[in-house]
Amino acid sequence: MTSNQSLPTIAILGGTGKEGPGLAMRWANVGYPIIIGSRKTEKAQAIAAELNAKLNLDSILGLQNSAAALSAEICVLTVVHTAHQAALDGLIQELKGKILVDATARVDFRQPTPPSPPSAARIAQNILGDDVRVVAAFQNVPAAALRKNLDQPLDEDVLICADDLSAMEEVAVLAESIGLEAYFAGDLDNAIVVEGMTSLLISMNKHYKSRTGSIHVTGIEKDSDS
Amino acid sequence: MTSNQSLPTIAILGGTGKEGPGLAMRWANVGYPIIIGSRKTEKAQAIAAELNAKLNLDSILGLQNSAAALSAEICVLTVVHTAHQAALDGLIQELKGKILVDATARVDFRQPTPPSPPSAARIAQNILGDDVRVVAAFQNVPAAALRKNLDQPLDEDVLICADDLSAMEEVAVLAESIGLEAYFAGDLDNAIVVEGMTSLLISMNKHYKSRTGSIHVTGIEKDSDS
Repeated sequence: MTSNQSLPTIAILGGTGKEGPGLAMRWANVGYPIIIGSRKTEKAQAIAAELNAKLNLDSILGLQNSAAALSAEICVLTVVHTAHQAALDGLIQELKGKILVDATARVDFRQPTPPSPPSAARIAQNILGDDVRVVAAFQNVPAAALRKNLDQPLDEDVLICADDLSAMEEVAVLAESIGLEAYFAGDLDNAIVVEGMTSLLISMNKHYKSRTGSIHVTGIEKDSDS
Repeated sequence: MTSNQSLPTIAILGGTGKEGPGLAMRWANVGYPIIIGSRKTEKAQAIAAELNAKLNLDSILGLQNSAAALSAEICVLTVVHTAHQAALDGLIQELKGKILVDATARVDFRQPTPPSPPSAARIAQNILGDDVRVVAAFQNVPAAALRKNLDQPLDEDVLICADDLSAMEEVAVLAESIGLEAYFAGDLDNAIVVEGMTSLLISMNKHYKSRTGSIHVTGIEKDSDS
């Protein structure tokens, strides 16, 4: 499939880790125009080339974060938490008028403990100001699952936290486009729980010798949404 | 079914709210000897009588919290978070040598926001000292689901946080006895995330007009546990 001009362009900022390329691959595979962003152009281009080769595409671009953000309608931030604030400080102008999906892994992988409020997503909203609609999502979709065979459906749900319901709904469409059921889970302050869930999933993966632990929502009928 | 003398006696401390009687009913129904604890004997006896009538039993007792704790092998604390510390301060002697399952609802239901560390379960362990094995569990099993028709199986998983793995396993048996799959999710510090999940489930229930939102674990094969 080639990219579809009617779909919004997605930039994956800090997209050279594990989670970013996994999400990029899934979205490119269903037709979204994708730009990989990185602090270094060459790193971004290397990941873009790798994904293009894997998907038999040539549409995925690799750019510096700021150029990637400028060229996209929706930006997804997939940095490690230690790089979160600096990445955002450098993108305030570029992100104006856009949706910033904060998927930051809020965890020290060597010593996973749950974070204290405020949530990374709330910090992002405070840095970026009212001209950017921040949405917290995708923090707990296991990279190992994203990067598996594309024919294998994803088997987890996405809890989306946002202050702006229309931005939330745009991000829910992104989730559902790659087979992830999306649930609205409250405002950006609630994202601290989803960010903290990463530490629990690491504990569970370690105890049960897995790499793909995640969660499903149960007991809610989405059809009854007003 | 009558209570089974080979099963440990469970005291539900602060067991006159919504969650406590729901858990008590499920455990009594599969044969556990149950004591309802409350600050006031009459309130405990009233709930015990109500549950006995519902289940056609006469074995469920109602006692003051301290007497209930003394008479049980495993104690489950189901108070609201504002009563958590005072309840524990009054039970330090009674709980010595036992397992205390902390199921405290760590939320202000009128204004649900995720809590900051430390977890209620860690606070409990600090108050009770090393002679009590604290286990965090059952915070997010919806009372509305527990109190439904007993023939209707429960449809959610329990994340168990504990510093002591053998105590965790004893509590996992309690969960599984009433049809709840149990997963070890790390130490007592991790319980802050499970406690915070209550705020998200309230947001989700409100948005989707449900009362039974909860979570399942996915992507983990428990058989591969060592």
